[in-house]
Order: sequence, then C-alpha cells, then structure tokens
Amino acid sequence: MVGSVAYDDVQTPFDRRRDLLGGAASYFAVAASLYARVRLVGVVGDDFRAEDVERLRGRGVDVAALERRAGRSFHWSGRYDYDMSSAETLSTDLGVFGDWHPRLPEALRDVPFVFLANIDPEIQLDLLEQVRGPRIVAMDSMNYWLEYKRSSVADVMRRSHVVCINEGEARQFAQTFSIIRAAREILELGPSALVIKRGEHGSMLFLRDGGTFWSPAYPLEKVQDPTGAGDSFAGGLVGHLAAVGSLDADELRRAVVHGTVCASFAVETFSVDGIASATPDAIEGRYQALRSLVAIGAETLAGAAPPPPRR
Amino acid sequence: MVGSVAYDDVQTPFDRRRDLLGGAASYFAVAASLYARVRLVGVVGDDFRAEDVERLRGRGVDVAALERRAGRSFHWSGRYDYDMSSAETLSTDLGVFGDWHPRLPEALRDVPFVFLANIDPEIQLDLLEQVRGPRIVAMDSMNYWLEYKRSSVADVMRRSHVVCINEGEARQFAQTFSIIRAAREILELGPSALVIKRGEHGSMLFLRDGGTFWSPAYPLEKVQDPTGAGDSFAGGLVGHLAAVGSLDADELRRAVVHGTVCASFAVETFSVDGIASATPDAIEGRYQALRSLVAIGAETLAGAAPPPPRR
Repeated sequence: MVGSVAYDDVQTPFDRRRDLLGGAASYFAVAASLYARVRLVGVVGDDFRAEDVERLRGRGVDVAALERRAGRSFHWSGRYDYDMSSAETLSTDLGVFGDWHPRLPEALRDVPFVFLANIDPEIQLDLLEQVRGPRIVAMDSMNYWLEYKRSSVADVMRRSHVVCINEGEARQFAQTFSIIRAAREILELGPSALVIKRGEHGSMLFLRDGGTFWSPAYPLEKVQDPTGAGDSFAGGLVGHLAAVGSLDADELRRAVVHGTVCASFAVETFSVDGIASATPDAIEGRYQALRSLVAIGAETLAGAAPPPPRR
Repeated sequence: MVGSVAYDDVQTPFDRRRDLLGGAASYFAVAASLYARVRLVGVVGDDFRAEDVERLRGRGVDVAALERRAGRSFHWSGRYDYDMSSAETLSTDLGVFGDWHPRLPEALRDVPFVFLANIDPEIQLDLLEQVRGPRIVAMDSMNYWLEYKRSSVADVMRRSHVVCINEGEARQFAQTFSIIRAAREILELGPSALVIKRGEHGSMLFLRDGGTFWSPAYPLEKVQDPTGAGDSFAGGLVGHLAAVGSLDADELRRAVVHGTVCASFAVETFSVDGIASATPDAIEGRYQALRSLVAIGAETLAGAAPPPPRR
C-alpha cells in the first residue's frame, strides 16, 4: 500500500488532541495487518517519532519502504462538528510529502495486491507502472484530485479492480446526485467492483456484472474521532481480499463487511488506537453482529462466516 | 387508521403539480390496502372530489368514517430541493381538519389493529379511549407535536406497541444525536418496537427485548416526489403486521421490509399514483431484491419469504 503517514491535530466538540499518528497509510496498515502482511510505501520527515515506526513494525508491517527525509512530516489539522461526520480541514502542511515521488524497491515490484490511497493520481499511475502484474489493485481518491486531476483519476480507475471512494466523491466524479448513475459511470471505466462509503449510513458494493450489496454501518453509541474511518475500511476490505486471494462476488461482499468492522473500531478512539485494539475475536464478533442486523428468521448465516483473521 | 386526507401542491426542481390527492391517511390507506382491509377515519371539506373518495373505495378502503364537512379540505404546499429529501413547507391550510375531533362509529370500536398517523397527540389519545382492546396499536408523530405537546406524544408512545417516526424526530424527542440512545429512551416508555425511518438511508427497527434490524432503502434511480414516503412505509409496515396478526420479532423485520418496498413505489410518481400502481408481484419482486441486497453466499433467504399480499 502507498499513502500518507502523518501527524494529525484533531478537534471535536468534546475533546482536542495534537500530533496523533495518522494518515491514510497508518490507518490502512494497522487495519490490514489484521488480515495479511502489509508492505508500506510512504515518506516521513526527520521529526517522525521512532516509536511510531516501531508501532507499525510491531504489527508485522514491513516499513522498509517507509522513507525518512530531512524536513517536516505531513501534518493535518481538522475539526468535527456535533454530527461527528465530515471534517473541516483547518490546515494541511504537506512537508516532505509535497514533492515525494516514490520509487519501489525491487523487492516490492512483485506484490500481488496493491492499495493506492488517496494521493496524487499521477503518482498512483506511476506506481502502477512499477509493479509487475499485480492480481488485485484497489484505489481511493479525494475531492481535490477529482476536481483538479479528474482524467488522471479516471485512468487510475481504469487500471484498478476495486474502486473505493465515498458517496460525495462518487457524485462529484459522475456529476450526478444519483448513486446508481454514478456507479454505472465508474464501472464503465473497467473496474470489477466499486465500493461507495456512506459513513454512518453504511456502504454499497456495485459489481460490474450487475450485483449490488449493501451493508449497514456498525451501530456505535460513542464515536470519539472519525478520522481514518475510510482508510481503516479500505484496510479491512483489501486485507480480506488479500487473505482470500479472490475477487469472487461473495468475497467482495464479505470484504465490505470487514471494512465496516475495521472502520467501527477506528472511530471509537483517537488516532490508530481504536483499530489497533481490535482483536480477531472482536473483529469476528462485530462481523457476526452486522450480519445479524440484516437477518430475518430462518435465514442461515453459515455462508457468511469469514475466514479467521491472520492475527 | 386515522389521519389527514389532503390536497397537496408539490414543487421539485424538475416539476410542479397542484391539488394532488395526498395526506398521511391517503398514502397509508393505499399502501395498507395491498395487505389488509383498511378503515379510514378522517375528514374532508366540501371541495373534496368525489372521484378521490371513489379511488380509495375502489381499493377496498372502508370510507364510511371519512366525514365530509362544510369548508375547505386540508391543503398542504411544499417544495423539495435537489436532494429530493426533506420538504420545505410553503403553506399549510388545515381547513376542516383544524377543529376536527373524530368520534368513532360503533362499528369501528372493535378494530384489532390501529394506526394513528401524525395528528395532534391529544386526538390520538382520545381515539385510543374509543377503541376496545386493540391487538396492535402503531403510531407516528411529527416535529410540531414533539415540540409543543411532547408529554402527550410520550403518552401515545406509552400506549402503542409500535412507534414509527423518522430519524430527526427520534433525535428531537430524546434530545440526543445518538440514534441508539434515542431508541433506548423511547423503548423505555413501553412500546415493543420502534421503527426509525431514515429516508434514502433505510430504516432501523429496535425491539424492546434487545433485537435490532436495519434495512436499506430500495435503490431507485429516479425519485419524482418524496411526499408520502413515510406514510406509505407505515402502510406496508402495519399492513403486514395486520395480515400476519403478530408482533413476532421476525414479522416485525419483514414488516419493515414491506414498509420499505411501499415507500419505494410511493416516491416514484406524484401523489398516490406510485403506490397505487404496485402489484403483488411487484411488491414481492422488490421485497426479494431488498433481501438479496444484504445476502452473502450460501445464506438462504427462504425464511424471509413474505406471505402473499392480499391483493
């Protein structure tokens, strides 16, 4: 996976924290490491705390391609309102991330599964040139790139098997309010699957061959910090796909539920602490709870049993 | 069922219509008549079109307790923005509905199933005094009563088996953003079940003994008029419960799916035309489609098969 490793300042109506380990890559890696071996491609500055690198390494994340450069690490500051939903960005300091052009070490060019977090789509494309025949490529993006580099984002979508973006971004990309029309337009570019994240309203999976799946969000009474929900979702999603090595329709559906579970842990606590605290048993418990939430009567959930998470 | 029978003027960004048959009772009755015999308690003015009464009667709705009084019928005018979600009310003319205090004919005092649409909670309570030992009482309310007659609304909830309100109303009633906390507070009043309608995000069922269920909305590419979605939802919900004569947890779950199906037909066309066009086969088709939308792999949906709708 490639993406940002950052320090975040987060304000909510209830609390405020500074210099939290964050960034898409951190959340994704901690979540996906519950399912598979993660190799992280990223960059940090010389202000980056050694204990944060150790924290990732301690979860089995391969940090050999996490570069350290002179300068400041990516720093994001944001604020949530009482709905604890979308963040208002107060400041973004790209630091060493700003002019970073990752070169994949030879050892990483044969990875079977690739996740491109929401970085510059031209860098996403450049990375795809550097890997040799990956089995599954999944990607995310964000409003900024959709506005300023739309055709490059479309190119990344064309070369991905799984597109995973949020509802507003899907609408923005397709210039339509209709999720169904947006899904059709994105799938026509070529990916096998599109996952649309809808925050507290769950997520939808659209398959190119016509299937559709919906999962509710995991109902939480308390959300402490929504930061990283989408990246943790992607971690559970891609982690599961890597663990089963398949894009089978049912595995994609299970992957969406795993993504939902990982996101639910992520938002319960600041930084990656929530998702880092999730045990395989806790993952399994929420997975089954989510399946029960949509079940009626004699329906058996046997077919929904996930493979055991890796750790 | 008791509620408003009205004429609506509806504006959307795409169209505008005047003097449409509307009101909670009209939508509810047309939807519920797919499942059970509906007896409608309401009032209209002398401007009310005979063909609209015939339209209800033609669906088997008992209109003997639909009073006709000198004056104007309830008239509502509203506008939807591009999100085609919540309406902005432009004007409300209560007409003969304003000082109406329904007296149930003797023939209606032994009805087994009661639905109280979102009218003045004091009238809802008065009606409950007039029925003798109904098996199932379901109720709806609205923001106005929650603000000005909160304790009466709570009294209606205490005497109901099924409370069916929308998300914003649940939050308003319980003075909390958390749906889970709001559900707990409402269920503590005594109802067996609480259904929280969330529009395009589906609906949630909370049972007093602890079960929870979540159904997605039926994905529609085109919505012409959201008016009456909640009332049609209630019609499918209560219609199913009346058809099976049970508050069993699984029947409540099925009832939520039937409510979802009826709402989906209602919003596809102006006035009650959408829900009126739904056939038993079309209802069954969307019911199964909604169940497929949440299914994974070997899960069997056999247990979810609904009883055949009445007509």
